[in-house]
Amino acid sequence: MSLRHALLALLDAGPMTGYELAKQFDQSADRVWHAPHPQIYTELRRLEAEQLVVADEQPRGTKAVKRAYRITEDGAAELTRWVSEVEAPQRVRDVAYLKATYFEYTAPETVRRHFELHKAHHQEQLHRWERHVAQLRAHETELLQRRLAQAPEERHEAIVAYKVHVYEGMAERARTEIEWAERGLELAAKLGR
Amino acid sequence: MSLRHALLALLDAGPMTGYELAKQFDQSADRVWHAPHPQIYTELRRLEAEQLVVADEQPRGTKAVKRAYRITEDGAAELTRWVSEVEAPQRVRDVAYLKATYFEYTAPETVRRHFELHKAHHQEQLHRWERHVAQLRAHETELLQRRLAQAPEERHEAIVAYKVHVYEGMAERARTEIEWAERGLELAAKLGR
Repeated sequence: MSLRHALLALLDAGPMTGYELAKQFDQSADRVWHAPHPQIYTELRRLEAEQLVVADEQPRGTKAVKRAYRITEDGAAELTRWVSEVEAPQRVRDVAYLKATYFEYTAPETVRRHFELHKAHHQEQLHRWERHVAQLRAHETELLQRRLAQAPEERHEAIVAYKVHVYEGMAERARTEIEWAERGLELAAKLGR
Repeated sequence: MSLRHALLALLDAGPMTGYELAKQFDQSADRVWHAPHPQIYTELRRLEAEQLVVADEQPRGTKAVKRAYRITEDGAAELTRWVSEVEAPQRVRDVAYLKATYFEYTAPETVRRHFELHKAHHQEQLHRWERHVAQLRAHETELLQRRLAQAPEERHEAIVAYKVHVYEGMAERARTEIEWAERGLELAAKLGR
């Protein structure tokens, strides 16, 4: 379960409300770990029950309160433990590739639409990753600024460099998928003749 | 849910028992869609209840019976429907990349072990995909032989070509991951100095 660690990492940059966390999640962690908002709120309550985070209540206007979560020492220890743990790589489950194994069952026109969608999706992803790499290098994201503001100077290079490495890797993956779809389009054209 | 479609596709090449299906699954479909054996048996019973497959009982020795599953017309129609349906691409959930975003929390030596494992895993995968591509091109896999024996001659090229395209794509993905891990190792060495 990695949603909890993504949330702990976000809170390690400073306290946030559930709403702010969900928003940050959409803007950053969601890029490598997709989770719908209800799952985020459920996991936050679990983290609170396990005392890995605590909620500070602050007045919002005159009547309401807002709950800002912050990471506890136990939470920070759990985050470090998880990052340090070297796990077995995940098994593959890719519906696009599974389906493509059986493209002989469908018309070349449908195959073409499959590969066009695959290509368009990964082109969009590629632009996202490239933009994000540029933002990270320029220290432009709010989350990175918060994290750098908290961390000693000598760790700044590593903080930025590992994130850049991940998003450059995502960009490279997207390029691989675009090329696969392009070769698929050529194949469909050839077989459809 | 794609396990059911992987099973329907296997049965479309000819009847098989649950045991044979599980074995075939490990040897072929498992490469793009991992599923543990109990899930396979559960899904087979569901497919039978929905009459997408039927089981023929055959004697095994003098006392036991074995159940050989075969695909029904409804099952074949469902397989074709699924292959033809163009779906939205999956969202990313990759624990290795998520974790790598936070490598500043751990020691360079641990980072090195993460990337070494990632590289070794994908090198092993790469050999599997390359071997499988060679086997497909040579029509060496039993499943492909069964499928070709059933299909009209004019479809043979497409049957082989789409499968080769998928496994070449998997090989290319593995190469992308190996290169990512190698750049990660260089980064860890640089930051660890």
